[in-house]
Amino acid sequence: MVAIIMGSDSDLPVMQKAADILTQLEVPFEMTIVSAHRTPGRMFQFAQTAAERGFRVVIAGAGGAAHLPGMVAAITPLPVIGVPVKSSNSIDGWDSILSILQMPEGVPVATVALNAARNAGILAAQMLGTGDPAILKRVDAYKKSLEETVLAKARKMEDR
Amino acid sequence: MVAIIMGSDSDLPVMQKAADILTQLEVPFEMTIVSAHRTPGRMFQFAQTAAERGFRVVIAGAGGAAHLPGMVAAITPLPVIGVPVKSSNSIDGWDSILSILQMPEGVPVATVALNAARNAGILAAQMLGTGDPAILKRVDAYKKSLEETVLAKARKMEDR
Amino acid sequence: MVAIIMGSDSDLPVMQKAADILTQLEVPFEMTIVSAHRTPGRMFQFAQTAAERGFRVVIAGAGGAAHLPGMVAAITPLPVIGVPVKSSNSIDGWDSILSILQMPEGVPVATVALNAARNAGILAAQMLGTGDPAILKRVDAYKKSLEETVLAKARKMEDR
Amino acid sequence: MVAIIMGSDSDLPVMQKAADILTQLEVPFEMTIVSAHRTPGRMFQFAQTAAERGFRVVIAGAGGAAHLPGMVAAITPLPVIGVPVKSSNSIDGWDSILSILQMPEGVPVATVALNAARNAGILAAQMLGTGDPAILKRVDAYKKSLEETVLAKARKMEDR
Amino acid sequence: MVAIIMGSDSDLPVMQKAADILTQLEVPFEMTIVSAHRTPGRMFQFAQTAAERGFRVVIAGAGGAAHLPGMVAAITPLPVIGVPVKSSNSIDGWDSILSILQMPEGVPVATVALNAARNAGILAAQMLGTGDPAILKRVDAYKKSLEETVLAKARKMEDR
Amino acid sequence: MVAIIMGSDSDLPVMQKAADILTQLEVPFEMTIVSAHRTPGRMFQFAQTAAERGFRVVIAGAGGAAHLPGMVAAITPLPVIGVPVKSSNSIDGWDSILSILQMPEGVPVATVALNAARNAGILAAQMLGTGDPAILKRVDAYKKSLEETVLAKARKMEDR
Amino acid sequence: MVAIIMGSDSDLPVMQKAADILTQLEVPFEMTIVSAHRTPGRMFQFAQTAAERGFRVVIAGAGGAAHLPGMVAAITPLPVIGVPVKSSNSIDGWDSILSILQMPEGVPVATVALNAARNAGILAAQMLGTGDPAILKRVDAYKKSLEETVLAKARKMEDR
Amino acid sequence: MVAIIMGSDSDLPVMQKAADILTQLEVPFEMTIVSAHRTPGRMFQFAQTAAERGFRVVIAGAGGAAHLPGMVAAITPLPVIGVPVKSSNSIDGWDSILSILQMPEGVPVATVALNAARNAGILAAQMLGTGDPAILKRVDAYKKSLEETVLAKARKMEDR
Repeated sequence: MVAIIMGSDSDLPVMQKAADILTQLEVPFEMTIVSAHRTPGRMFQFAQTAAERGFRVVIAGAGGAAHLPGMVAAITPLPVIGVPVKSSNSIDGWDSILSILQMPEGVPVATVALNAARNAGILAAQMLGTGDPAILKRVDAYKKSLEETVLAKARKMEDR
Repeated sequence: MVAIIMGSDSDLPVMQKAADILTQLEVPFEMTIVSAHRTPGRMFQFAQTAAERGFRVVIAGAGGAAHLPGMVAAITPLPVIGVPVKSSNSIDGWDSILSILQMPEGVPVATVALNAARNAGILAAQMLGTGDPAILKRVDAYKKSLEETVLAKARKMEDR
Repeated sequence: MVAIIMGSDSDLPVMQKAADILTQLEVPFEMTIVSAHRTPGRMFQFAQTAAERGFRVVIAGAGGAAHLPGMVAAITPLPVIGVPVKSSNSIDGWDSILSILQMPEGVPVATVALNAARNAGILAAQMLGTGDPAILKRVDAYKKSLEETVLAKARKMEDR
Repeated sequence: MVAIIMGSDSDLPVMQKAADILTQLEVPFEMTIVSAHRTPGRMFQFAQTAAERGFRVVIAGAGGAAHLPGMVAAITPLPVIGVPVKSSNSIDGWDSILSILQMPEGVPVATVALNAARNAGILAAQMLGTGDPAILKRVDAYKKSLEETVLAKARKMEDR
Repeated sequence: MVAIIMGSDSDLPVMQKAADILTQLEVPFEMTIVSAHRTPGRMFQFAQTAAERGFRVVIAGAGGAAHLPGMVAAITPLPVIGVPVKSSNSIDGWDSILSILQMPEGVPVATVALNAARNAGILAAQMLGTGDPAILKRVDAYKKSLEETVLAKARKMEDR
Repeated sequence: MVAIIMGSDSDLPVMQKAADILTQLEVPFEMTIVSAHRTPGRMFQFAQTAAERGFRVVIAGAGGAAHLPGMVAAITPLPVIGVPVKSSNSIDGWDSILSILQMPEGVPVATVALNAARNAGILAAQMLGTGDPAILKRVDAYKKSLEETVLAKARKMEDR
Repeated sequence: MVAIIMGSDSDLPVMQKAADILTQLEVPFEMTIVSAHRTPGRMFQFAQTAAERGFRVVIAGAGGAAHLPGMVAAITPLPVIGVPVKSSNSIDGWDSILSILQMPEGVPVATVALNAARNAGILAAQMLGTGDPAILKRVDAYKKSLEETVLAKARKMEDR
Repeated sequence: MVAIIMGSDSDLPVMQKAADILTQLEVPFEMTIVSAHRTPGRMFQFAQTAAERGFRVVIAGAGGAAHLPGMVAAITPLPVIGVPVKSSNSIDGWDSILSILQMPEGVPVATVALNAARNAGILAAQMLGTGDPAILKRVDAYKKSLEETVLAKARKMEDR
């Protein structure tokens, strides 16, 4: 099971895309708000109990000085995927990206592109797919469907 | 099994750290050179056969206009971890980071910090750990050993 | 003949300007969608057969982690012109620019300004003009027409 | 009393300057290592007990994805001064600065210049000086001594 | 008492948030315009008399080449909090941030995030709280109220 | 024939690589100094006569506010390749890159990576190759030799 | 007399402010379009004859790869003021700023802030004021009027 | 007469080049240290009396949060030339550049390239040359000597 957490409900429009693709890939998930800065106790408890509660991957989205992904990664042994969110208090997203990406040795966060929550969902599925061939197969099929969509658009452009 | 690939042998001093931590975490791996730009055919074949050859995770390091992680991720359904390398032809690493991180919807690359190949290795172990509790346990023990090291240094600084 | 390719149909409003100027300069071209990340096989085949299909120059536009120009340049011996597109998933265009510009030794991409597809078309004509004086002449005439336009505007401002 | 904490002993050469100026300004302090990422439990406990242990200001230095100042600020009501450290794993210091500075509403960190631990010490003294005129007086005298030094150098340059 | 100054009345929509939170935290303040560049004499006099007029902390907001916080800090021994304002003449806020943050040794400015005047107000209260436990208590209560708000939103999201 | 020009003799160590690869690809060239800022008359005359003197492509390298490639492109109808040089008066190369790349509509400069004079030489050969199949063939062979080199290094790394 | 030139009529809304302030300061000027890239011949002739035509200062505005100010400065001995314009083809203005500011030794351009054409006009008046006390006096009076405006706004804010 | 001021004696190696070129151009000058942050009173007095003391142009160099040029420009009606210095406490010079360049409406600083004190000296001479033809002539001769130097180097390179 995948946990999708975000620092604020204002991140939901971005983070919902992670939920959508996990639904599509038939990967169960739970989604909630955990703020490293406003609910540090909740964050700590979430991270300490995530593995025993059955989560296998954590997706964490945050903006500005985005500490949520890195702090959860500091506490849980589970893989953490960080989604830099271009929130209203962000400097074009640079602060979100660097705060999530530039983690020190020993505590990685798997960072995806700015606002790329859908990719975070796909990556979570791929991680689970290392031990679950059925999930990997669905990821493969999803990627092939993307290819089909582009090929159709290419034919359409060529036929103009 | 983890594949560690890099665009050039000049990336080896950085990428060796991925091999070292995987050895320490008892995760088998293979390491070689695959250049997206100079050996595109080899890159294609590597990515197309990686899953069937038994790899479960790919770690790809590259510098400058770093296309290797993203192109491998475009071809294989396996999770791909990208290591931006601050090579001699890089602009302070910004080109490496953005070329690897900013992947389009549908094709994630799990990006780690600049030159952070050790973290790529840990992340690969964590991914495999989603399906293999023994690996996850070793990651957990490794993280605890980091904590011990810092606590010892803290005591030393306080005792000055 | 010039090939104009782009990673997504959302790049068309930008890339159409390359087609327009080539039409104006009487240089034949074909335009289609080729995505390095979503249709890697198609990209490979396109690049491998471009020369034998009669293309002499390739113009490739892409945004974000823009791998299309560089990957085509890795496979074909033809000159490749890269157009960094400021797509919606781009960080102010920096990612597109650096992903296209900062190619390693041996594999150049002729990069033009952000969104500057018209300049890509002119550059393609200039390249063909190295072997075809008639095209070069039309480029020269086009540049002189730009000069005329500015001179007319200058007179208008001075006469205010 | 002021607490000076840092994420790693490699930050000591920078952070020692905070200790030096506090000594000079006769402000008592304690200095130790607290890593948000490697000793999250210790960080939590430090921040939760800082006020009751008699600290009135916390100076926290960290590099890269620098989460220490912001996380301590999230937990303690005390003012927290953040020192962005240009560590070896930092991208010219930009990651350290943005990770510390761009805190969300409700949880400020008083950020000083890159590597400016001496200024962090002065700022801590100024904060304590809001309630302790004797400290403020010493800060004032220190600033005047800086003025004297510059004036002497100015005379020397003019007399060349 | 806290002084809130700003370089231009166009900064008021941002700086008003400092006044609002100080009102909420029951910390008295005065607010006015002081421009380092257009009223340098007024700026000088303000800074020289701030302490004797009973101010204990100065909050200064400015945009572009923002010299107000640093110049006031150069003249008064009081702690100065700088608010980088993303004004219309600013380059995405980078100029405001760097002009305020990167002060030389001896003259710190406590810099908060771009446009983060509310955090400047909280920080001013925290500074005064080092000598006034009642204020610190109100800061603590305010932070707990933020936590409550987030927890309520989290429950709401989980109950969807 | 290719013209290689540079703004200063301090650019020679970088620009020599363009000469070397053109020699290897058997493309004739001439190399000299033309400074847009210090010898504007010479620059003008060079650009105005380049085509009639038999040049088919111009490679221009410059650093800092690098106006040479763009000004030559403004005057000659020939294709101009710009090499941003990270000179001592450059800000990490950003000024050189942006001054060369961001040309307005109608006046393209084919920009290559920072200091990538070898790629400028290859690109010049590719441009001439649009009308001269023998040159294109030599480019193709050169690229294949790069592939061979990388494959040999890959075998070596795998055999360790 | 001051010359105000710009690369395109699209720069007029910005550059008009230079004309307005010069009118207010009673400094005669002429304004026209001179494009370094589209009318290089006109640019050359303008710069070569500017001094003999009675101009004493040149104000040049341009966007993107802005070569106009630097090229005019290369040709005329007159002081040249550069106005970086944030045109539609600019990357947040960074290209315009760096292309104008980072001139090599021997060829200065007096650069003002992004879009700050009014400041360019004031600076031109100040330059002429070095030899014409009446102009300097008017600049002084203008600056005092700015002070009055701010003081009035300050009183208004304090009286709220 | 020209005033050359700098914030610290550590700026002297850069600023000496302004003195050298002014000596060569036979323009009298005085050079001293004036720190906006450490000697604000001295800065104020310098700026207020500069015109009456016979200065016609002020050259001010500073690094980091460089407030000296802008503050002097706020107080004196004389033209002020700002030299951004890449000091040890600077972030690659970006802070120095933006703090000096991005001045608000009404208070221009004529900014030159990073560390370009020689250009500041030339620009000062050009400013004085608007009212003193003999100085302008010497600037013209100096620029021609630069041209000669480059032409000689060009011949040397062509004769290799």
